[in-house]
Amino acid sequence: MTFPVVGMVGGGQLARMTHEAGIPLGIKFKLLSDTPQDSAAQVVSDVVIGDYRDLDTLRAFAQGCDVITFDHEHVPTEHLRALEADGIPVRPGPDALVHAQDKGVMRAKLTEIGVPCPRHRIVRDPADVARFAAEGEGFPVVLKTVRGGYDGKGVWVVRSEAEAAEPFRAGVPVLAEEKVAFTRELAANVVRSPHGQAVSYPVVESVQVDGVCDTVIAPAPGLSEELSARAQQLALKIAKELGVVGHLAVELFETADGRVLVNELAMRPHNSGHWTQDGAITSQFANHVRAVLDLPLGDPRPRAKWAVMANVLGGDYPDMYSAYLHCMARDPGLKIHMYGKDVKPGRKVGHVNTYGDDLADVRERASHAAGYLRGTITE
Amino acid sequence: MTFPVVGMVGGGQLARMTHEAGIPLGIKFKLLSDTPQDSAAQVVSDVVIGDYRDLDTLRAFAQGCDVITFDHEHVPTEHLRALEADGIPVRPGPDALVHAQDKGVMRAKLTEIGVPCPRHRIVRDPADVARFAAEGEGFPVVLKTVRGGYDGKGVWVVRSEAEAAEPFRAGVPVLAEEKVAFTRELAANVVRSPHGQAVSYPVVESVQVDGVCDTVIAPAPGLSEELSARAQQLALKIAKELGVVGHLAVELFETADGRVLVNELAMRPHNSGHWTQDGAITSQFANHVRAVLDLPLGDPRPRAKWAVMANVLGGDYPDMYSAYLHCMARDPGLKIHMYGKDVKPGRKVGHVNTYGDDLADVRERASHAAGYLRGTITE
Repeated sequence: MTFPVVGMVGGGQLARMTHEAGIPLGIKFKLLSDTPQDSAAQVVSDVVIGDYRDLDTLRAFAQGCDVITFDHEHVPTEHLRALEADGIPVRPGPDALVHAQDKGVMRAKLTEIGVPCPRHRIVRDPADVARFAAEGEGFPVVLKTVRGGYDGKGVWVVRSEAEAAEPFRAGVPVLAEEKVAFTRELAANVVRSPHGQAVSYPVVESVQVDGVCDTVIAPAPGLSEELSARAQQLALKIAKELGVVGHLAVELFETADGRVLVNELAMRPHNSGHWTQDGAITSQFANHVRAVLDLPLGDPRPRAKWAVMANVLGGDYPDMYSAYLHCMARDPGLKIHMYGKDVKPGRKVGHVNTYGDDLADVRERASHAAGYLRGTITE
Repeated sequence: MTFPVVGMVGGGQLARMTHEAGIPLGIKFKLLSDTPQDSAAQVVSDVVIGDYRDLDTLRAFAQGCDVITFDHEHVPTEHLRALEADGIPVRPGPDALVHAQDKGVMRAKLTEIGVPCPRHRIVRDPADVARFAAEGEGFPVVLKTVRGGYDGKGVWVVRSEAEAAEPFRAGVPVLAEEKVAFTRELAANVVRSPHGQAVSYPVVESVQVDGVCDTVIAPAPGLSEELSARAQQLALKIAKELGVVGHLAVELFETADGRVLVNELAMRPHNSGHWTQDGAITSQFANHVRAVLDLPLGDPRPRAKWAVMANVLGGDYPDMYSAYLHCMARDPGLKIHMYGKDVKPGRKVGHVNTYGDDLADVRERASHAAGYLRGTITE
């Protein structure tokens, strides 16, 4: 057998769905997971339980892997360099991944290569935040710890110098950004291989609720061809210039005056690409696997006029399985993707995908199912 | 957590692909496999290694399972009855499954419920075969051991009484059937739930080479609406009358005079339904899982005008992975499904799916990829 072993660090739902997408390729999948109860650890055969922050654990895990990739961006950069020095291909590599780990490094690099970003700079203290505000349009200002944030955590919108104290308490450098008056959020998803082949998915609209992605619509409704092409070219340029291997999600702000500005980067399969499982010829997960193995990439084109993904958040009611009866009977074309996680209020425990020709219908089906599974819709 | 545990007996590729289809539903999947190297055992987390012919092993495996289903039809009927007596739902149940285990029982039942079959009867010895031939159109006659055959094994086409000795040597009852002068082979795939809900996939053409399925075309080209409807109704009738739960494949002969006759039954996901993974809204594997859990079934309709499945057989060259480069680069829409099996000449080690609007193109892409992976096509 000459089929390679893909080692994935992190046992979350992205690893779970990457495993699912890897099964048809006949590759061997090995998982480093914090606990046996983690989302991916429940469904993968070859699981090592251990702490990804420990270099010896990572080194032992990497033995017998042909390539290492990631469910998340939290593995320390110096550990990734050590694995590379051991001769293990790490994809994306540390020089690329640092741009998804450190928002300060990311902003500096994107600005250097001419990618439009919100006005930004590293700030030292609340007084410096006030100066940053005064240099532009004033408050409110967005403050972000440069490392460790996700899903709205590690991000503050402050309206005064007095409100700006909190972000500095963690002792991590803080990045200030203008609060962009965006009309909506978009995401441009691309996948790039070590060979330099890249594919680009249709640009999507990402609808956020309380700082968490609620719904993704593919393609973004009403997006001009020109802006769509510009967003895709930006994402492809970032992937190339940063040397990304695997899936890259570029979260974007669309502004009323027809600009797109980069908000965040993620170098792994991403929530804004979950619709590709049922709505594209090749899913982001399958293409991520192909990219990290340096195989030719699969066709990223859509299989339906419209596809909608809605996240399923935990509600007050822990039994989501019994809700399957109603959801499946109501909509035989509904695609449910659950992560095997215990239900906690507000926690992402799954998503649903729908697709079809009529956007209003496709969107209603997805929102209804997500709401019914959460328990906020009861009929 | 209220998600059920589906126990699957048998570690072959059907279990592997059922596991893959079950991951998005968040159900727990437990496997009883002969060896840790079996196709499904490589990718499933919760695997018990043991012999399905041993009742104690089955009973221990069934502990903690909410339902038991199968990768194959070889579990002894009396063991299934014992599990049912223990209170474990077995789906399909022994009273249904016996019709897929014993060709004599199957022929008797189908004849009783008015389903058209080839002329047949149980024969005692070669002289009785000669009498059976004389009762109809004469030799050749098809002889089948009533239990234990698959993929052309346990089946003989004999041209004389002298040739008819071999099938009787195993000591298993032998069924004689007329050799039907069919124009092609079709398959009607349906899925039925304990509630009695059933869905029917489009009728497909199955192209056999040397007694093994080579290519499946969905839908069967040029099949009249009337014959398609009749084949689907036959399959739905069989599923209902036999009390099938889960996927039922009805292999059919189409004759020049516009009849369809039942050849074989399989009560599990089936090779003639593999195209549904990429060509239908809900795959046979996903619907099998939904059926055995008594969930509402998913939409069986096609997602493309044409879908083609081609089996990948082992060739002389053991390294199929290196063939991915050419196949994937040539056809970014190709869907590869490999089973993790060691390559042996003639062994089914995977399949490929293609789909699109132009049948000749879709068919060429599938045959090319299957041939290239096998090594019979080198460019």
